[in-house]
Amino acid sequence: MKTISDPRKMSSFSLSARKKGLKLGFVPTMGALHEGHIALVRKAKKTSDIVVVSIFVNPIQFGPKEDYKKYPRNPKKDAAMLEKENVDILFYPSAGKMFPEGFSSFVEVGGPDKGLCGASRPGHFRGVATVVAKLFNIVMPEKAFFGAKDFQQQAVIKKMVKDLDMSVDIVTVKTVREKDGLARSSRNAYLSKAQRSQAPVIYRSLRLASKMIKAGETNAAKVTAAARKHILKGLDFKIDYVSIVDPETMEPQKTIKRPALIAAAAYLGKTRLIDNILV
Amino acid sequence: MKTISDPRKMSSFSLSARKKGLKLGFVPTMGALHEGHIALVRKAKKTSDIVVVSIFVNPIQFGPKEDYKKYPRNPKKDAAMLEKENVDILFYPSAGKMFPEGFSSFVEVGGPDKGLCGASRPGHFRGVATVVAKLFNIVMPEKAFFGAKDFQQQAVIKKMVKDLDMSVDIVTVKTVREKDGLARSSRNAYLSKAQRSQAPVIYRSLRLASKMIKAGETNAAKVTAAARKHILKGLDFKIDYVSIVDPETMEPQKTIKRPALIAAAAYLGKTRLIDNILV
Repeated sequence: MKTISDPRKMSSFSLSARKKGLKLGFVPTMGALHEGHIALVRKAKKTSDIVVVSIFVNPIQFGPKEDYKKYPRNPKKDAAMLEKENVDILFYPSAGKMFPEGFSSFVEVGGPDKGLCGASRPGHFRGVATVVAKLFNIVMPEKAFFGAKDFQQQAVIKKMVKDLDMSVDIVTVKTVREKDGLARSSRNAYLSKAQRSQAPVIYRSLRLASKMIKAGETNAAKVTAAARKHILKGLDFKIDYVSIVDPETMEPQKTIKRPALIAAAAYLGKTRLIDNILV
Repeated sequence: MKTISDPRKMSSFSLSARKKGLKLGFVPTMGALHEGHIALVRKAKKTSDIVVVSIFVNPIQFGPKEDYKKYPRNPKKDAAMLEKENVDILFYPSAGKMFPEGFSSFVEVGGPDKGLCGASRPGHFRGVATVVAKLFNIVMPEKAFFGAKDFQQQAVIKKMVKDLDMSVDIVTVKTVREKDGLARSSRNAYLSKAQRSQAPVIYRSLRLASKMIKAGETNAAKVTAAARKHILKGLDFKIDYVSIVDPETMEPQKTIKRPALIAAAAYLGKTRLIDNILV
């Protein structure tokens, strides 16, 4: 595995790879890698000649009171994990190279960036779309791989790619879970032992909602109320949202029409966890 | 010359051209071509293996009260002019293909899009940056050519390219003028005979300002006041702005520091004319 930190060197590598006709697969990450990321890497390896993984904790997608500074960073462990997966290139730029002084251009996606996490985290998806546009322009992949856990994120990116005619296929990969159902997330590292034992309640509440829908329930308010009630059985939860939305536009459904996305976000102490099920 | 109207066909043409190692030069236009556009095409021909010219009157860069509907459209004459210049590809998409229903993603450049035309035409540069980002993604050029007449536009595009890491060189080509100094512009077609005879006053006022600066004047207010006075000798002029700005950031200069851009916009009747000199 080769590590490249200069965006210019990354693009010239990509340009020459594409001129050779090589298919480039790209997995953008913020590091603190776990099995969810590795699933993306493996999917990329299967369908690409060259796999590039980026690690970049993107400052512009964090709100001023969010966890940018304490977001977990394990560069050595991450590099070892990627090496083991035979990743070809680790792209590891600095914040100064990605957002030099005077940086002022942003991509605003509109549509699926409203609601859910977009409502609770103003500017978050603008930051995500902007950094992903930059990374796509630097890495020039044919395919890019995103986890279904961040479902709204991949919907925003798909919309950006479509609206701005970017030549990249967005591949969404199934959420990887712990044995007890908790979605793998870098933020799980924040949880205390007691919180960790409660965390799977979110996924169980989504499964409950999914079962209701599969059994024929079409009243979204009824389904989300049941899921909320289930989550609040966990002692320390503070719910941000439980919503049923169109999986492409992210628009709320009052009367459930499949395919539908059941999505939830909740705080356990200061840690914000998200999860979703497509039904 | 081959005409392509489908964005997907355009990108697959470009992809295969780039895989062959051919250098692609791109001239984005809104049609109603004149000698200014032809100068861009000739510059592109000199430095590229394949030249693509797009003609697209971009609805999202016009304000609601502006001239989108009456903007001059001469597709046959345009095609004949490009054919004569041995242009390889005319990309001529429809508004429906470029901005289908539900389109919601925009590029906001910030910085050089403030002030001057950005102040008088809210949303204009957002529309320009967005359509140019789309066109770059579709056409995938190595170089793109813009006229110096629209100086703020090329500054906004250069900033976007830098901030978003787009792999395209922006080449700015000298303004082409009529014998009496009027900058060539598709909008000159709107002018009555009487207005046309007054129109060169703008350029003459910029030359006057340029001479003052070259003679050592550094007080921007003094220089612009002289230029304004000169423009207002033309009977029908309504000045939008006369400004001296940094040519990269477009920030106003109080004390002139070269290089400086002297830029003016004025209405002759309903027709808005712009011009500038770099000094």
